[in-house]
Amino acid sequence: MTEKIPYKIYLTEDEMPKAWYNMRADMKNKPAPLLNPGTLKPLTAEELTPIFCEELVKQELDDTTAYIEIPAEIRNFYKMFRPSPLVRAYCLEEKLQTPAKIYYKFEGNNTSGSHKLNSAIAQAYYAKKQGLKGVTTETGAGQWGTALSMACSYFDLDCKVYMVKVSYEQKPFRREVMRTYGASVVPSPSETTEVGRRILAEHPGTTGSLGCAISEAVEVATKNPGYRYVLGSVLNQVLLHQSVIGLETKAALDKYGIKPDIIIGCAGGGSNLGGLIAPFMGEKLRGEADYRIIAVEPASCPSLTRGTYAYDFCDTGRICPLAKMYTLGSDFIPSANHAGGLRFHGMSSSLSQLYHDGYMEARSVEQTSVFEAAEQFARVEGILPAPESSHAIRAAIDEALKCKETGEEKTIVFGLTGTGYFDLVAYQKFHDGDMTDVIPTDEDIAASIAKLPKVE
Amino acid sequence: MTEKIPYKIYLTEDEMPKAWYNMRADMKNKPAPLLNPGTLKPLTAEELTPIFCEELVKQELDDTTAYIEIPAEIRNFYKMFRPSPLVRAYCLEEKLQTPAKIYYKFEGNNTSGSHKLNSAIAQAYYAKKQGLKGVTTETGAGQWGTALSMACSYFDLDCKVYMVKVSYEQKPFRREVMRTYGASVVPSPSETTEVGRRILAEHPGTTGSLGCAISEAVEVATKNPGYRYVLGSVLNQVLLHQSVIGLETKAALDKYGIKPDIIIGCAGGGSNLGGLIAPFMGEKLRGEADYRIIAVEPASCPSLTRGTYAYDFCDTGRICPLAKMYTLGSDFIPSANHAGGLRFHGMSSSLSQLYHDGYMEARSVEQTSVFEAAEQFARVEGILPAPESSHAIRAAIDEALKCKETGEEKTIVFGLTGTGYFDLVAYQKFHDGDMTDVIPTDEDIAASIAKLPKVE
Repeated sequence: MTEKIPYKIYLTEDEMPKAWYNMRADMKNKPAPLLNPGTLKPLTAEELTPIFCEELVKQELDDTTAYIEIPAEIRNFYKMFRPSPLVRAYCLEEKLQTPAKIYYKFEGNNTSGSHKLNSAIAQAYYAKKQGLKGVTTETGAGQWGTALSMACSYFDLDCKVYMVKVSYEQKPFRREVMRTYGASVVPSPSETTEVGRRILAEHPGTTGSLGCAISEAVEVATKNPGYRYVLGSVLNQVLLHQSVIGLETKAALDKYGIKPDIIIGCAGGGSNLGGLIAPFMGEKLRGEADYRIIAVEPASCPSLTRGTYAYDFCDTGRICPLAKMYTLGSDFIPSANHAGGLRFHGMSSSLSQLYHDGYMEARSVEQTSVFEAAEQFARVEGILPAPESSHAIRAAIDEALKCKETGEEKTIVFGLTGTGYFDLVAYQKFHDGDMTDVIPTDEDIAASIAKLPKVE
Repeated sequence: MTEKIPYKIYLTEDEMPKAWYNMRADMKNKPAPLLNPGTLKPLTAEELTPIFCEELVKQELDDTTAYIEIPAEIRNFYKMFRPSPLVRAYCLEEKLQTPAKIYYKFEGNNTSGSHKLNSAIAQAYYAKKQGLKGVTTETGAGQWGTALSMACSYFDLDCKVYMVKVSYEQKPFRREVMRTYGASVVPSPSETTEVGRRILAEHPGTTGSLGCAISEAVEVATKNPGYRYVLGSVLNQVLLHQSVIGLETKAALDKYGIKPDIIIGCAGGGSNLGGLIAPFMGEKLRGEADYRIIAVEPASCPSLTRGTYAYDFCDTGRICPLAKMYTLGSDFIPSANHAGGLRFHGMSSSLSQLYHDGYMEARSVEQTSVFEAAEQFARVEGILPAPESSHAIRAAIDEALKCKETGEEKTIVFGLTGTGYFDLVAYQKFHDGDMTDVIPTDEDIAASIAKLPKVE
């Protein structure tokens, strides 16, 4: 290609995906099914419908249909903030003096500040279609909660958000954004649920975790008629909706004849990574192309790199289904790392299976080095990145610096999931030298893994 | 046109403007010259160069050259965050059930959160080219300060920002963003300057104003070798750089054969309004087309609608040049309105002249009604708007509702200057019912206008 690659590649609205891509359809080893926490038998659609919307249950269980049409109402909403730009990081390349070509798919140009809106609007749509009154959810950094608030406001649904306490305190303004969209927000663990009261009694002073907040939100959804629970990550349905990220990325690259060598995403529950890599992984699964795919997780919560591949509860309260995944144990409570969105003890079943089967790599990075990368990126690319996203930036910079050593002109694509406008407390700590790297010991991890449920 | 208008119209990078448009070249009645505050004679380039960069002085005084080339370095930087989208507000139209067609030019997709980066990068570029060490400035809401920090970081220039005290306190995280880009930020009025100490002595407990902060920044620039002062609004040079907004808007509209009926911008010092309307006003001045152009200002600081057209100081400390403009008097300190960027006592000379000559209208709006419009907009368009920008939203909605009454299918274009991620304290007050509308009395305004300097 001699054509000059622009700084930002935008698809036209006509070029936007009309169907989501379901990676599972192309997996030989399907992700293991969710299990009923009582019977330890695979969950049926009937058992899932009291928790999730009907259409979403179908999507959750469907591991054979490769493409699922995106309803027109959702495609219209997508046009409000999509297509998102695929950016050529010319300035970062120049700063690093690397021969590598770096691209990032930027999902932060909407008020939720992240990719979370892609699935939030889909889940709210199906809830509305089913005639529900409202939905409940948890949120870590607040991005998912904000996204869901926006989506519920659009479809006039009630929205109850359980927010991990550490994030609730670190990000006071997130609550106000959710309030602008009419949601109610409760710090978790709370006294408003049975499971919350139990966790508070067992761990007084806990700063919470995604696992706790999930337990609370599920309890409220199942006890209130007309409500269902929705989740922003981990689930198959979420990865399905997020495939819009990867499909757009691939379409934009194809437009200019670009083939990436390395694809990098940050990984908490796997929503962004699973979405970003979807069509590329599809090619890899079908033997049509090969890519290096790298999941980047925080050293404080290293499920892929230091966890165990086993069935575990998705929540701390142990009321949710069991998923087979890389996990640190549902009892594991990570240190108060500033990447709230990456503080989940497990990882999406699909991604866990793919990692287990050798289709992707994983690495963990420490948060001070993540913020160094974030600041370096902000200064040359003009975007203040979220701490979560900055994990991918760290790995992308490291790969680009390796290319500088070897002289290789690799093409690196990473997912820039969102903006850090609500993470300034973390940036302040970093600037003041008050940021620490708290990494779990082997004993910490062994202790929580010892408590994994016994399955088979 | 039968072609479907997309939700977002993006120009390609090739279609981006290669020259700024200088509205003054087409004005029959040129804006009155700046006066030396000592001699009350028009300022010469020689007198201005100790304050401003040389190239910027040229641009400031040039009222005959219609197009001024945008240097390649600036055009490259622009590509980092431009072209900005021109959005068709389909969802807002539907919500309002109006036959009007509403478009907005969204300038918030960059970390400064506003259009201010368009001029910041230009001013930093010329400072660097002149071999300066650094620049000083004032900032109201913090958008200009952030933009300048980003621009200075890019060109490795020192950046000292005097931030209006009320905003400094309302927006604690703005400082942290500026710090990420390496700037130093001082709340104004401060004890660090002579003029700051004088203002503090005269008005103890003042929450500051743009006028005070300008005085301090100018003092520091003129007393430190290798420094110059830069300003984010009011000046001709700023309106020149901001013309990129209007030029892109017009190019995007032309692409689809759309001719606006009404063009609306919020107006503080005039940077966004002047930039947005530039090419449209050019056509109007040359008699090639007609448009209704509406400036929207806060009822708490109504320079166009309740001020006087006269020579006045641009700063409270009375050390800056005098400009002929609509003004409330440099002594006027507006109430602590949350639209910090619109709290300036005067208005760009060019816009003042155009308003005086009947080329545009002006109206003032109260902040509670502005926040009502902001929330309504956020819920359907997915963008949390800045309080400043929301003044334009208010007027656009009002015009669209008039169309609903009359059945007219008018095309309305407004400038959405930025995002409100750092304005959540204001949103919180609005949600809590703690927001008030403090409007100056006729006596307040008469008192400060009585102190205008005597010129001729």
